[in-house]
Amino acid sequence: MNSPTHIPGVQFSNRTRWASRGAISFLMQQGVENPGVLSLAAGLVDPDTLPVELAQEQLSELLADDARARQCLQYGTTPGSEHLRGALVPFFAELENSTPEELDLQAEDLVLTTGSQQLLSLVCDALFDPGDICLVAAPTYFVFLGALEAVGARTISVNTDEQGMCPDALNQTLADLEEEGELGRVKLIYLVSYYENPSGVSLATERRKQIVELSKKWSKSQRLMILEDAAYRELQYDGEVYPSLWSFDTDRQNVIYTQTFSKSFSPGVRVGFGILPDDLKKPISDLKGNDDFGSAHLNQRLMAQVLGTGHYRDHVERVKASYTAKRDAMLAAAENYFSDLEGVTWQHPHGGLYVWMSLPESIPTGFDSPLFETAVQKHKVMYVPGELCFAGDAVERNHMRLSYGVLTPERIGEGMKSLSHAIREFL
Amino acid sequence: MNSPTHIPGVQFSNRTRWASRGAISFLMQQGVENPGVLSLAAGLVDPDTLPVELAQEQLSELLADDARARQCLQYGTTPGSEHLRGALVPFFAELENSTPEELDLQAEDLVLTTGSQQLLSLVCDALFDPGDICLVAAPTYFVFLGALEAVGARTISVNTDEQGMCPDALNQTLADLEEEGELGRVKLIYLVSYYENPSGVSLATERRKQIVELSKKWSKSQRLMILEDAAYRELQYDGEVYPSLWSFDTDRQNVIYTQTFSKSFSPGVRVGFGILPDDLKKPISDLKGNDDFGSAHLNQRLMAQVLGTGHYRDHVERVKASYTAKRDAMLAAAENYFSDLEGVTWQHPHGGLYVWMSLPESIPTGFDSPLFETAVQKHKVMYVPGELCFAGDAVERNHMRLSYGVLTPERIGEGMKSLSHAIREFL
Repeated sequence: MNSPTHIPGVQFSNRTRWASRGAISFLMQQGVENPGVLSLAAGLVDPDTLPVELAQEQLSELLADDARARQCLQYGTTPGSEHLRGALVPFFAELENSTPEELDLQAEDLVLTTGSQQLLSLVCDALFDPGDICLVAAPTYFVFLGALEAVGARTISVNTDEQGMCPDALNQTLADLEEEGELGRVKLIYLVSYYENPSGVSLATERRKQIVELSKKWSKSQRLMILEDAAYRELQYDGEVYPSLWSFDTDRQNVIYTQTFSKSFSPGVRVGFGILPDDLKKPISDLKGNDDFGSAHLNQRLMAQVLGTGHYRDHVERVKASYTAKRDAMLAAAENYFSDLEGVTWQHPHGGLYVWMSLPESIPTGFDSPLFETAVQKHKVMYVPGELCFAGDAVERNHMRLSYGVLTPERIGEGMKSLSHAIREFL
Repeated sequence: MNSPTHIPGVQFSNRTRWASRGAISFLMQQGVENPGVLSLAAGLVDPDTLPVELAQEQLSELLADDARARQCLQYGTTPGSEHLRGALVPFFAELENSTPEELDLQAEDLVLTTGSQQLLSLVCDALFDPGDICLVAAPTYFVFLGALEAVGARTISVNTDEQGMCPDALNQTLADLEEEGELGRVKLIYLVSYYENPSGVSLATERRKQIVELSKKWSKSQRLMILEDAAYRELQYDGEVYPSLWSFDTDRQNVIYTQTFSKSFSPGVRVGFGILPDDLKKPISDLKGNDDFGSAHLNQRLMAQVLGTGHYRDHVERVKASYTAKRDAMLAAAENYFSDLEGVTWQHPHGGLYVWMSLPESIPTGFDSPLFETAVQKHKVMYVPGELCFAGDAVERNHMRLSYGVLTPERIGEGMKSLSHAIREFL
């Protein structure tokens, strides 16, 4: 570490050293340093569909009652507002096409977090000592890979296809790990179950069931948990409706479920939630107590208020209509500008915010690749390099994550055209 | 771990095991299970002075401009809103009785967190590997002791008197640790510099200077940092105005400063901030990126808006007037009901939310003590046992932290009277 004076450097923790890959920081820096660049990289949400009026209305309604306003401005509890946790029970039951009674779900099964990201981080803290193992899809959400690195976890990729993680491959991986005497170190299977960031793939229904069964089968000396990240669940535009992995965990022992209102409502309000197996409730609450005592209470009460009005569903429909048009614009542009490029393929997502595009293996896409430089500097377009989305054991270098979240359909078309020009230079 | 079926238990991380002391959970549970009990324990803030109108007004002002509203509802950045960080520079300079130019302080020196608690937690993550050492006052903030435990830090108490931590004792402790070959493990000195929770004590000005100097003197193989927790700085009712420890760290290498708007404005809005030495900026931001990408952006913009109006200062004056009356009520009640109790003494705080009361050594005050049970069950009054506020190496069992934050002056009087009755049973 550099210091301007003779004073010695700071000796940081292992966590800090492990957390320093900072891919997101690099991307944000690129965005700031290249203001004229069209970003197909940004994971922000559509600014035009942010709920300005709804937030305004409901905040003023919420604070109009003096006693209620005082509650909202006071500390909440560490696991979060009873009002919102109570409102989430029927909300979640509806997503499950069920009722709270059928599900036997209570407010105290839920925890509220600062986005769902905080729950991902808390689960890492709760389960992993350095050297413990997490199994992930390939590709998977790169920010979670960073969180795993920061706790010193070993990450193992499981073979994944267009229906998501392959149960046979998962079973084989676990059998191999048992053979190697490592099964006791396998703490978690991480799955983005709906319209995965980055691939857009949803795990097939039958596989959901099989993977939950495998988590129980391989819970031998200790329990093998599943973290179901359902961040994009509500952003479904067409195609099949999937039951959650959680719904197959009938004894409620193995699946930690998490979802967020950052995509469907507002990332600036930053409210996510988790549904926890009994054994996890106190540990997660203790860890969250150390982190922040509880996320912003006002925001939780706002979300409870918004869910209570019935306007939330209408809002989500508007958001979905907007993203559907953007997804279609990106897929149309892919068809227009990329279909004559040999060896270039892409996924057709039924929801979420991303199109995953694959180039011939001879064309790497990383931050330090000629393609990335050419795309940003010459063609003024940026993407997320796919290699960030693979665990260290199975990195593929020829993919790109393309986001249609922020730009208008027109700008998406322009960006895709520019990107195709950049790629043509390397074919 | 108990499980209803035959499935094996969850094998939690060391962090989880270390984080499980959960004193706050116990206190909250006591509060819930004993609804008729007057709580002199709760660390909540005065509900009557919460800024209902100000929050209402400024939120609606903030969201009235459509473009600005969309920014507020969108993701912010991990270190936090430029608007608020920018507004905090002159705000902090004013507290320092200085100007931004004189201080040479920039927005990028600041990080915004979910209360100041999140910065305390991030600093623990950034600096401590298991077995590393933190030096603390005795008594000190018990939630921070819990956070230190959760990262496996060893905590060493430094002799403390009515002027705060003793520099001579600190120097001696560091010399002893060097002698034992442990100096390289000492990462941090933690100090609540204004009206410490729980003791109400403020570190004397000369000691601030000396302790900063000691942190530099003892930065030998690696840098010894100071975490200055100024959570209560604005809640000054009378007495001396203290410069920050930060102000003595002229080369900006050793002091991490943190403050919060939870006490002076609203804990439900949950905005805190830190001022970081250069070397800490990227590590803290990387760790926070894994935790949550950034705290709620809407809340940060609200605080920027509130600071911008000039109404904030008026609000703080009202808050201080209210707490001054409550502190006076508690001190008057102490005088009334405790002054004839031999061996019972208490501090007279000039700010903050707490009166620290000491009993004869023969009367333990802990959760499992006869006094605690008698106080809660028979006399319907609750306090925070002082023993929670000492590191494991130097626990004293005969103190109580009494909070005047929540109750009205009348109820404070009643609570103190009841508490004196409970204590009388043990004298």
